[in-house]
Amino acid sequence: MTDSKTIPDRPVLRLKPKANARAIRRGAPWVFDNELVMDRRSKALAPGSIATLEDGERKPLATVAVNPGSRIVARVLDRDATVVVDRHWLAARLRKALSLREAAYDAPFYRLVHAEGDGLPGLVIDRFGDTCVMQPNAAWAEAHLEILTDALVEVTGVTNVLKNAAGRGRTLEGLDDVDAVLRGAAPEAPVPVEMNGATYMADLTGGQKTGLFYDQRENHGFAARLARGHSVLDVFSHVGGFALAALAGGANSALAVDGSAPALTLAAEGARRMGASDRFSTRQGDAFDTLEALAGEDTRFDLVICDPPAFAPNKAALEKGLRAYERVARLAAPLVAEDGYLVLCSCSHAADLNAFTGACLRGIGRSGRRAQLLHTGFAGPDHPLLPQLAESGYLKALVFRL
Amino acid sequence: MTDSKTIPDRPVLRLKPKANARAIRRGAPWVFDNELVMDRRSKALAPGSIATLEDGERKPLATVAVNPGSRIVARVLDRDATVVVDRHWLAARLRKALSLREAAYDAPFYRLVHAEGDGLPGLVIDRFGDTCVMQPNAAWAEAHLEILTDALVEVTGVTNVLKNAAGRGRTLEGLDDVDAVLRGAAPEAPVPVEMNGATYMADLTGGQKTGLFYDQRENHGFAARLARGHSVLDVFSHVGGFALAALAGGANSALAVDGSAPALTLAAEGARRMGASDRFSTRQGDAFDTLEALAGEDTRFDLVICDPPAFAPNKAALEKGLRAYERVARLAAPLVAEDGYLVLCSCSHAADLNAFTGACLRGIGRSGRRAQLLHTGFAGPDHPLLPQLAESGYLKALVFRL
Repeated sequence: MTDSKTIPDRPVLRLKPKANARAIRRGAPWVFDNELVMDRRSKALAPGSIATLEDGERKPLATVAVNPGSRIVARVLDRDATVVVDRHWLAARLRKALSLREAAYDAPFYRLVHAEGDGLPGLVIDRFGDTCVMQPNAAWAEAHLEILTDALVEVTGVTNVLKNAAGRGRTLEGLDDVDAVLRGAAPEAPVPVEMNGATYMADLTGGQKTGLFYDQRENHGFAARLARGHSVLDVFSHVGGFALAALAGGANSALAVDGSAPALTLAAEGARRMGASDRFSTRQGDAFDTLEALAGEDTRFDLVICDPPAFAPNKAALEKGLRAYERVARLAAPLVAEDGYLVLCSCSHAADLNAFTGACLRGIGRSGRRAQLLHTGFAGPDHPLLPQLAESGYLKALVFRL
Repeated sequence: MTDSKTIPDRPVLRLKPKANARAIRRGAPWVFDNELVMDRRSKALAPGSIATLEDGERKPLATVAVNPGSRIVARVLDRDATVVVDRHWLAARLRKALSLREAAYDAPFYRLVHAEGDGLPGLVIDRFGDTCVMQPNAAWAEAHLEILTDALVEVTGVTNVLKNAAGRGRTLEGLDDVDAVLRGAAPEAPVPVEMNGATYMADLTGGQKTGLFYDQRENHGFAARLARGHSVLDVFSHVGGFALAALAGGANSALAVDGSAPALTLAAEGARRMGASDRFSTRQGDAFDTLEALAGEDTRFDLVICDPPAFAPNKAALEKGLRAYERVARLAAPLVAEDGYLVLCSCSHAADLNAFTGACLRGIGRSGRRAQLLHTGFAGPDHPLLPQLAESGYLKALVFRL
């Protein structure tokens, strides 16, 4: 495909003779430092610059973004080695990402770009109506921020573009943690977001991550189906993801537990806007302590959800993380009424579905309960996966009946 | 738990001293012939009789159903060894199953009992309004058919109960393949079933399995979300599962391909009742041949679904089955328009999610296309799984964007 067109005049990175060029041809998105000929010239390339990747026989393989300071030295932007990464190219990628979201959602609230899964490695963009929050978590995205913003406004027509620099990946890429307003203005108040019939308040400038997690939307919707007429406990609730969806689904009551007072305030404001304040309550505190306290109060709920932070963010933390998931399950299961439902979630890259399911079942078993597994859910379709990058499938939600 | 109550006066089956009693205590549902002391008395037990399972030390473990002629000699009915399996016990199990379906669905059309997953091993019951179709695929269910029917009518209030004896498991249990009307009458015409806004015609007496597959409902719904304004090809369509859901979701056109003329006639009748006949067409023939023919016609579709029969029903057929899935993917991918969607399904027990995904990606890759993975779906919540029986999770649906 690259023969008939011209390779742009730009730096070249070369695979070592023994490196796996076939993997790149098949769609692998990353090239590590030990797979590349890292001569003085390669090491001197500016982080975020664009280069042509060649195989060991100097045949052009792909257009890549380079960061000699990262373990991932090259990220494949295009398997066509002749493309120029300009505003036009970026707009085409954004348009492709947008068309998927417009097919899957009725309103412009979604993850618009999910990094490698959308062919824009390291770049995350969440959309909240006429505001986009961009996380340039790779050097190339930071280096191309201006034309990226131009292309984003061109394709989506949004008024405001914010930069969120809190992504963990930025440190590995040698990037700072300074947020910015790239276009328009930051919304002065939290933005209301409608999902699954619930209203969530997204604090786009002060919140965690981008103020709202879109990835659990499908799982919120599934849990809400089971909530009608029931009492609901949402532990690690953040701004009320499961609790407010359950109220929209007809729950009699929902209690949201979180360590963050600001998150609970946003959740309560969402419930108020839904006209559901009388069915909603919050409890601020450590989730484990609160689970134990609730057990002491002899309270039971028809539907209990635990959606904790990543206990096993990497392989080193796997064993400890799985024990934490087991503990969550063991503490939560006794709070579930007979024939009630327990939703257990993991957003840990390192804990795969089988390992996470095993930890949950051990915890449930140790609490003396038995479970049916009703549903296994993942992130929604605005979080597409690159099949070659299994790690991108981080989110798991298991729905049990006890 | 079994100490305070009396063990009923009935046959006893005993685990060999080295057999894994702990697995039973943890919820394993099956006991194989090589785990049991199969003396003359045990071998003489009537298929379908109820017994007390004891561990190697003669401690009661569970109430089991026995079939000395099957490799699965004992199926755990209750981990309480003191229960009597009578109409009352059956009604309690059915009530528990019903309450889950009533929570998850608005109308009485669903799989009411999913065998081991609902604590009723080998028994499948599908409900179509006031008619239930029962598949007693284990000897105990066949032997208790009368009180099972009584309990079913008591709990659900249905008018008609049909017996479908086509289940593959029945041969292994030494059961015949004779259908019957157990209560009321068989519906004279196909029954209309509403799901995801579509109308399906379920032929409860002449159809395959129980005339309609409920297990793909969630995946139909997901695919339908992507169908609006699009052209759709549904290969191995049966009575139009994906095609009619896509039409209900606003597809411009849907073509259903199946080898069975009666299935396509039912699909067309569904489309007619939906007022969608002008957007619906069918093509009868071998799926592989038709995929190749369509490629020759240079036709493209925005959404292509392939939901074939189980190509890998057991471990012996795994390699061959995976090659068949790869071939389906390879033939289907070229028919998908640029940025279109490809849904690939497997209902093979033996092909697990990773193996099936790998086969699909190989097929897509060989066709020269690349894929994003948007969604991984399983059977709906009316097909609950016993976590101890991983095999029960047979259905997989992968939604790719090409």
